[in-house]
Amino acid sequence: MRFANVDGRLTLLVADGPIDVAGASKGRFGPSPQAAYESFDDLRRWAEDRGEPASAGSEAGMYDPRALGPVAPAPRQVFAIGLNYRDHAAEGGITALPDEPTVFAKYPSSFSGPVTDVPLPAGSVDWEVELVAVISRTARAVDPVRAWDHVAGLTVGQDLTERRLQQRGPVPQFCLAKSHPGFSPTGPVLVTPDELATPDDLEIGCAVNGEQMQKARTASMIFSIPQLVAYLSTIVTLYPGDVIFTGTPSGVGAGRTPPRYLRPGDELRSWVEGIGELRQRFVPPRPEA
Amino acid sequence: MRFANVDGRLTLLVADGPIDVAGASKGRFGPSPQAAYESFDDLRRWAEDRGEPASAGSEAGMYDPRALGPVAPAPRQVFAIGLNYRDHAAEGGITALPDEPTVFAKYPSSFSGPVTDVPLPAGSVDWEVELVAVISRTARAVDPVRAWDHVAGLTVGQDLTERRLQQRGPVPQFCLAKSHPGFSPTGPVLVTPDELATPDDLEIGCAVNGEQMQKARTASMIFSIPQLVAYLSTIVTLYPGDVIFTGTPSGVGAGRTPPRYLRPGDELRSWVEGIGELRQRFVPPRPEA
Repeated sequence: MRFANVDGRLTLLVADGPIDVAGASKGRFGPSPQAAYESFDDLRRWAEDRGEPASAGSEAGMYDPRALGPVAPAPRQVFAIGLNYRDHAAEGGITALPDEPTVFAKYPSSFSGPVTDVPLPAGSVDWEVELVAVISRTARAVDPVRAWDHVAGLTVGQDLTERRLQQRGPVPQFCLAKSHPGFSPTGPVLVTPDELATPDDLEIGCAVNGEQMQKARTASMIFSIPQLVAYLSTIVTLYPGDVIFTGTPSGVGAGRTPPRYLRPGDELRSWVEGIGELRQRFVPPRPEA
Repeated sequence: MRFANVDGRLTLLVADGPIDVAGASKGRFGPSPQAAYESFDDLRRWAEDRGEPASAGSEAGMYDPRALGPVAPAPRQVFAIGLNYRDHAAEGGITALPDEPTVFAKYPSSFSGPVTDVPLPAGSVDWEVELVAVISRTARAVDPVRAWDHVAGLTVGQDLTERRLQQRGPVPQFCLAKSHPGFSPTGPVLVTPDELATPDDLEIGCAVNGEQMQKARTASMIFSIPQLVAYLSTIVTLYPGDVIFTGTPSGVGAGRTPPRYLRPGDELRSWVEGIGELRQRFVPPRPEA
């Protein structure tokens, strides 16, 4: 099934059209898209009786894309995985691959819906398309074999990064460099894993002004989603609605010769097969920044 | 004034004893200690008429310390500052001081109250006593001169760190290494800045089994609390209830020759002048970990 955050209200997308979940469930679920994850297994069972899920792409006409918010707008915890594709680690000059996932955080004040204008705070903002997973259960020490049961669904994300801030200082600044306003768009929908024939192997890519920059398959991630869920849950307690940005493949601007960064007027389109796409237009910095 | 989280309820501590804020305010504020920050300026005005604040230390008899929870149990964002005391950067072998704060995140699943037993997940767990600030207003681009107005109050924190995990891999793993269960105790109380004669200059320290390990004054921070609030707010939007761990002075176990780490049975006492103290007892790892 496919869910969206439409004007801040949890919405189920079926073949017949969008269903406002709070209204249709008489307040049992919704309207908060974030609170939906607290009882996601119940929500799924309820949603199963609401009709045939909308097919991928068919929902595009169901809403104004600018009315869409993040599918998990206020997670308690955000995990972002670095160096999770061999070819991206190599383009960053890192040849010794990690034995364990490299994990940093993105701050929720950087979250947005899928179609936005993003102010550029600097001249070194780079793209990183990512598959994003949202957690459905409180858990520790999850067995990798059962880890998909802990995933509410998948969505598309961008992990926009200010490269000069990231590389400044005595240790890399991952968390802040990836958390300027608008730097974490997700969407357009949350797709439950059962909706995808091969949730472990999806085409992922992005294009700037129509020119393809990244293209890969998620099967080439070093640590799969079940492995990430299992690993993270050995250290932290995972909560419903927690968000995992699973890492980006090669093709980022910093890996090009010469490096190429986003400029005002650029249009970035980011997609994952079977889920949908994000569209960001970059604009000059805000006066306050 | 001084607030505590007693059994999950926001509690005001005055000279006459503890006041359950939800009861005394007829539900206008509380019971959630986290929600208190959403209208903290109003809460302060209400609390001013409730009597003389409890003096530092006098509240110790007002509650069972094990009933205390974190003063900000569910922040939307947690900022932790690395290398914010010259002598601590030097003991870590870093001589080029940062021009800007080094910022990472701690995950809220690691939060606890001030008096706890902490399972040791590894043999390389280290102490880092820190002054912790909690934000009171939504803000961007805060003027440093007004930054104290954005701080609800101060508390004591420990930024417990698993050093081997922190140093493993191609880039340092700050976020996870500092987020095992129980690795972020705070408390015992939130003290509003006006309650402290010199909120910019407080003695801070910790002791293991009675042996003093860290002792410094917060005036020797490289970036003061107003500077941190101002800097962070140029990049992210700060939210009420967000938490800033402001960095640790020298004296950590990793900086000693040979390194010294926490062992089962060790007792760690951490304090900040005018606020209070934390007490952690370390116990063997949980079977699941």
